[in-house]
Amino acid sequence: MGLRYLSAGESHGKALTAIIEGIPSLIKLKAEEIDEELARRQKGYGRGKRMQIEKDRVKIISGVRLGKTIGSPICLMIENKDWDNWQNIMSLVPDAAKMENRMTRPRPGHADLAGLIKYRHDDLRDILERASARETAIRVAVGAVCKALLREFDIRIISHVIQIGDVRAENIPDDPNKIWKNAEKSPLRCSDINSEIKMMAKIDKARQLGDSLGGIFEILAIGVPVGLGSYVSYDRRLDGRLAQSLMSIPAIKGVQIGMGFDSASKYGSQVHDEIFYQEDKGFYRKTNRAGGMEGGVTNGQPICVQAAMKPIPTLYKPLKSVDIVTKKPFDASVERSDICAVPAASVIGESCVAFEIARAFLERYGGDNLEQTKKAWQEDQDYLKAFY
Amino acid sequence: MGLRYLSAGESHGKALTAIIEGIPSLIKLKAEEIDEELARRQKGYGRGKRMQIEKDRVKIISGVRLGKTIGSPICLMIENKDWDNWQNIMSLVPDAAKMENRMTRPRPGHADLAGLIKYRHDDLRDILERASARETAIRVAVGAVCKALLREFDIRIISHVIQIGDVRAENIPDDPNKIWKNAEKSPLRCSDINSEIKMMAKIDKARQLGDSLGGIFEILAIGVPVGLGSYVSYDRRLDGRLAQSLMSIPAIKGVQIGMGFDSASKYGSQVHDEIFYQEDKGFYRKTNRAGGMEGGVTNGQPICVQAAMKPIPTLYKPLKSVDIVTKKPFDASVERSDICAVPAASVIGESCVAFEIARAFLERYGGDNLEQTKKAWQEDQDYLKAFY
Amino acid sequence: MGLRYLSAGESHGKALTAIIEGIPSLIKLKAEEIDEELARRQKGYGRGKRMQIEKDRVKIISGVRLGKTIGSPICLMIENKDWDNWQNIMSLVPDAAKMENRMTRPRPGHADLAGLIKYRHDDLRDILERASARETAIRVAVGAVCKALLREFDIRIISHVIQIGDVRAENIPDDPNKIWKNAEKSPLRCSDINSEIKMMAKIDKARQLGDSLGGIFEILAIGVPVGLGSYVSYDRRLDGRLAQSLMSIPAIKGVQIGMGFDSASKYGSQVHDEIFYQEDKGFYRKTNRAGGMEGGVTNGQPICVQAAMKPIPTLYKPLKSVDIVTKKPFDASVERSDICAVPAASVIGESCVAFEIARAFLERYGGDNLEQTKKAWQEDQDYLKAFY
Amino acid sequence: MGLRYLSAGESHGKALTAIIEGIPSLIKLKAEEIDEELARRQKGYGRGKRMQIEKDRVKIISGVRLGKTIGSPICLMIENKDWDNWQNIMSLVPDAAKMENRMTRPRPGHADLAGLIKYRHDDLRDILERASARETAIRVAVGAVCKALLREFDIRIISHVIQIGDVRAENIPDDPNKIWKNAEKSPLRCSDINSEIKMMAKIDKARQLGDSLGGIFEILAIGVPVGLGSYVSYDRRLDGRLAQSLMSIPAIKGVQIGMGFDSASKYGSQVHDEIFYQEDKGFYRKTNRAGGMEGGVTNGQPICVQAAMKPIPTLYKPLKSVDIVTKKPFDASVERSDICAVPAASVIGESCVAFEIARAFLERYGGDNLEQTKKAWQEDQDYLKAFY
Repeated sequence: MGLRYLSAGESHGKALTAIIEGIPSLIKLKAEEIDEELARRQKGYGRGKRMQIEKDRVKIISGVRLGKTIGSPICLMIENKDWDNWQNIMSLVPDAAKMENRMTRPRPGHADLAGLIKYRHDDLRDILERASARETAIRVAVGAVCKALLREFDIRIISHVIQIGDVRAENIPDDPNKIWKNAEKSPLRCSDINSEIKMMAKIDKARQLGDSLGGIFEILAIGVPVGLGSYVSYDRRLDGRLAQSLMSIPAIKGVQIGMGFDSASKYGSQVHDEIFYQEDKGFYRKTNRAGGMEGGVTNGQPICVQAAMKPIPTLYKPLKSVDIVTKKPFDASVERSDICAVPAASVIGESCVAFEIARAFLERYGGDNLEQTKKAWQEDQDYLKAFY
Repeated sequence: MGLRYLSAGESHGKALTAIIEGIPSLIKLKAEEIDEELARRQKGYGRGKRMQIEKDRVKIISGVRLGKTIGSPICLMIENKDWDNWQNIMSLVPDAAKMENRMTRPRPGHADLAGLIKYRHDDLRDILERASARETAIRVAVGAVCKALLREFDIRIISHVIQIGDVRAENIPDDPNKIWKNAEKSPLRCSDINSEIKMMAKIDKARQLGDSLGGIFEILAIGVPVGLGSYVSYDRRLDGRLAQSLMSIPAIKGVQIGMGFDSASKYGSQVHDEIFYQEDKGFYRKTNRAGGMEGGVTNGQPICVQAAMKPIPTLYKPLKSVDIVTKKPFDASVERSDICAVPAASVIGESCVAFEIARAFLERYGGDNLEQTKKAWQEDQDYLKAFY
Repeated sequence: MGLRYLSAGESHGKALTAIIEGIPSLIKLKAEEIDEELARRQKGYGRGKRMQIEKDRVKIISGVRLGKTIGSPICLMIENKDWDNWQNIMSLVPDAAKMENRMTRPRPGHADLAGLIKYRHDDLRDILERASARETAIRVAVGAVCKALLREFDIRIISHVIQIGDVRAENIPDDPNKIWKNAEKSPLRCSDINSEIKMMAKIDKARQLGDSLGGIFEILAIGVPVGLGSYVSYDRRLDGRLAQSLMSIPAIKGVQIGMGFDSASKYGSQVHDEIFYQEDKGFYRKTNRAGGMEGGVTNGQPICVQAAMKPIPTLYKPLKSVDIVTKKPFDASVERSDICAVPAASVIGESCVAFEIARAFLERYGGDNLEQTKKAWQEDQDYLKAFY
Repeated sequence: MGLRYLSAGESHGKALTAIIEGIPSLIKLKAEEIDEELARRQKGYGRGKRMQIEKDRVKIISGVRLGKTIGSPICLMIENKDWDNWQNIMSLVPDAAKMENRMTRPRPGHADLAGLIKYRHDDLRDILERASARETAIRVAVGAVCKALLREFDIRIISHVIQIGDVRAENIPDDPNKIWKNAEKSPLRCSDINSEIKMMAKIDKARQLGDSLGGIFEILAIGVPVGLGSYVSYDRRLDGRLAQSLMSIPAIKGVQIGMGFDSASKYGSQVHDEIFYQEDKGFYRKTNRAGGMEGGVTNGQPICVQAAMKPIPTLYKPLKSVDIVTKKPFDASVERSDICAVPAASVIGESCVAFEIARAFLERYGGDNLEQTKKAWQEDQDYLKAFY
């Protein structure tokens, strides 16, 4: 069992929902803190107008009472504020008029064409409504619940953007707190203000060109105890789980841990984290090239993963495609006007990492109620101190 | 349910085993074809002597009869030919002498220290015996079974090495058959002979330096039908599953799909695969930047994933570490003498990809017996032809 | 993966919800048909007043468009019409007043005391709100979706009550259609009117005594193809899955298949279904003592399972218990006034069976869209005809 | 994740194997204690000669070192001592001679016919080799590992036979230790010697008649802590899991918990366990009609489940069946000569219960290593004492 969730909801449907199951009881949780995370996802230089209009708000439908989780499944819902304008198109019941109005023009870079064939639909709307980045809003809500759990154990999940198009962040602070502070203030979640200026210029240029941009973000998890995940079976390795989780975010095309792809071009003597000992510190490392995991197990260093996001496929400068009915070429329509969504993706990435760490954490320490989980974790901290 | 497997076995234990469950009946399977895959994993310029001595052979313990799978779980076993020399150290029963002889020197870059703490052992051997690349031999055997299934549907999984250290393969053929042919002949699984020569020189240099090398390999899956995986839930996306699977191979630190990390620095107009139509071809693409998946669903193009392997952490030129008992520093011991294992990793990668594609394939077409699966697939091929 | 669902919701919370994932696209589905199932659950002689007041209505929040499933997760919601009266007690935010008002009197026969300890609550409401038969309403909604799928394959799920207290149904018709017809008309879902009269008298007597009654219901699944479930692994056996599913209904204490417990006291020659052959019929049986499954696999005969429900633990005639704070004995409070809920349980049982059969069905025939699933099933029907 | 296992192996194949994954490290485990459990399964008045010849012995292939589990997957193997005589019939490679020799006569009461159709075989041997009670030997081995874990927490699993054919055990001792002692000495695992004599007479009579007998066994789990399983989701309920597990044993047709089916015919005032308090005892019950679970959660009382086994379908007095090729009727062949296997089934039942309790136990207390699990459990015991 362990921690799990399912989500549902179409982009222009009534609402997005998620049911999270396996969260211990007794964790403090407020809708407001989930809303804050939702707001963080909606920010970002380079977003179109839709994002500015709707402000997502969660409703906690169940699983929380008098300020705390009660151990029951938690149902979260984000209603679509624009539902009135969509209820005809998204109607539950068939209607000849609407069915004539179907979408037949698949957009490159989306699941449109492959999804249509998979589910044997004849209206692309039946695909694109779910195969939409809108779905990530509810993942952020799920992540916010996981963060509330992790917070009880002083585990923090931090994201920042390290590349937009071909502009890389240059002076990234060493101190994660500094990274966090800077990123939270930055419209691009970039921790270096000079790089940020260049990134914004790049986005402005892309806007001018009618083009879009991707980038790279990094997620740090600070305070994660030693021993989450395991090497004993392939599907217990935390590195693999994090990779799945991040790669499952729409538009993510690459994931790396620690030195990642760079380690491929180095010598062995340059990529491992030697082990040192000092009486007051215990065992320690001077480097964190492994990104906090060795053999798929957390080693007590910050977890450090990066994900590459491709540019958004919906451009002002249209891509060529072909109508599925007429078989005539057309220029792929612009449905929304984001130019760059990397800052948003980095917040979604935080949620994915938060979920996977929470899951591995509860596997290790047990998960019925916060009191027990806390004592198990405390006992382990004590063991570690004695060992170190 | 679907396709699943568990594996077991210590590096110097009696044997590695796997049980694969969910393979349809009526698939032709011979031990010899699994052995061929095992042999492919053991090749490669830059491997140490251990690899040259032992030749892995599988025993099919159950699930196959008279040349075919029967629908029952398939148990595979690779015996340790050197077991006689290890049965004291790996003894099932306690023995004071052996317990004194415990290993207390954790190697950087391995699960040693984190694993010891996770499982509260006091002998590192209890970790390293399982947290060993030896485990991947049985994964290759599992992958060979999946390949036998995929072969029935003309799906082929091809790997080749595209980087060793900082040497990149340059003239990679466009034709996957050519890639395959070249790679199979190459001691480095490199599809370009000139690059191969440079890579071998790089390995020779690393050997001289007492150092090790990683690299990057690519897996292509040819003939995969449209519609495997799904965008409807994060854990059904095939891109995420492939990422997990590859990242779970020991020493893999990065995974990318299609253009991967490169897509992050390009404009949107440069990274998507426009859709075209021609009567004799149907819908088609001129590019495959997406790597065969859009929205986590296969789109009929070759699947194309790459993984970055860090250099092997066990070097002649030793890394610094600290004894867990004496707390004294030491130079991490060399247990084996591989310099570069990227070619082997690429064969393991094939297996991981074969398993995930087989799993997604059976989810789509049903999986009790080959006859039914084949008819369901055939019907879908016909549908596609009509659609296209 | 396969078919799966999660549900959430407290008895007096805002709403019950479920997310069902893995339902093929293209299945006709209307809220009204789910509502009909919800109404069937609310009927029954012997129910208290609460049931008569609230009429459950489902909202399909997502996964359905223009009359059909679209392949995306289906979110169902049943709102609590009495929410206004409960929002203080069930408030999301802490409130000193409410916390003083906590429930400290565990009811025997409920999860109250064990749940309180498991989750370390101090207010029994945090347990009983989820550990409530109210949760089964959403299971019925989930089952209705599964029935919509099964209907496409002429599979019908039928329930009827065969015992109330010590009164057994006597003249149960052989014809399942007759059973269905009678049960649907009967206030007790009993297929024999004479037995029904005795059962109602028994309930009247229990009401007079201030006591409650359980009983036994039977679920028949008609039209299930040969070959669902499997003997190859314990967790693929359909008999085991049905047993889990039914036993997980609150108050169910026993499950049996076919002859069930009676088979234990018979000779072998009396409990098996001999195999016959006749040109026009093919292979057939004259009996169905096995209840439609041999070796955990469906054999083409009607599936026949029975479940025993204990009497509702909340009685007018109170049970003794002890306050968790004062440690003083008290008489367990009556929260609701049902005397007998077996007819409702039988409808819930239909849903559980529908879900498990749908799950096994999709495992066998594949599950992306109705068209493919139907063709795979048709091919199998043809195979069977040729075989038989 | 949690605790899981897969098993493999045909009845007359090389060996049965299982891989158990998720067992904490540091648990003492010896092959001999598994062998003892295997021997217990092979006993029993009424078994045929095959059972008397082969004595099953386990080989621990991996996961155990120097007397303890190391946290890695545990591979167990029971070799077929008669393999030499079967290797032609069960050959991995095709052979025209053998294929002519195929079995075409399905036995009623087995998976033979349904399995043949499911997997589209033409030789019944491909079904019956796996759909065989032989598979339960490895389940007992898996259960023995789980018992080794549970023993560390003073949890004991006890089975005894309470009915053979229509003969019920009459004077069952109240004290589980007494039940255990008597059952272990009894050739029928019956705790009452007078009933045992009658049961043996019944078996003798069945033997004379060429018939077979089933029966009912009971499993008790003593010392299980409060709070295993949960009411929060249907698939976390321990009652449902136990039902699945027991129903998945071949020939089991019914499962009940506590009063089970009897509760259906009683009044509510007769079936619940009132709650009492006494300073020296804390909260307690005078009855255990619920069988140790309320709302699917353990309540600290002994778990008490019963399972009904149908008589073995292979009789001297043959059942009628029809050849699948000739379509001619025949008398179903006798493959083995057991008359009654209920005592064996009760040992298998212990294993199933041990596995499910171990799984739920580790979900509650965490499961990386015995030391942590033990401290978490101890902390909970202390909490309970303070609460009570």
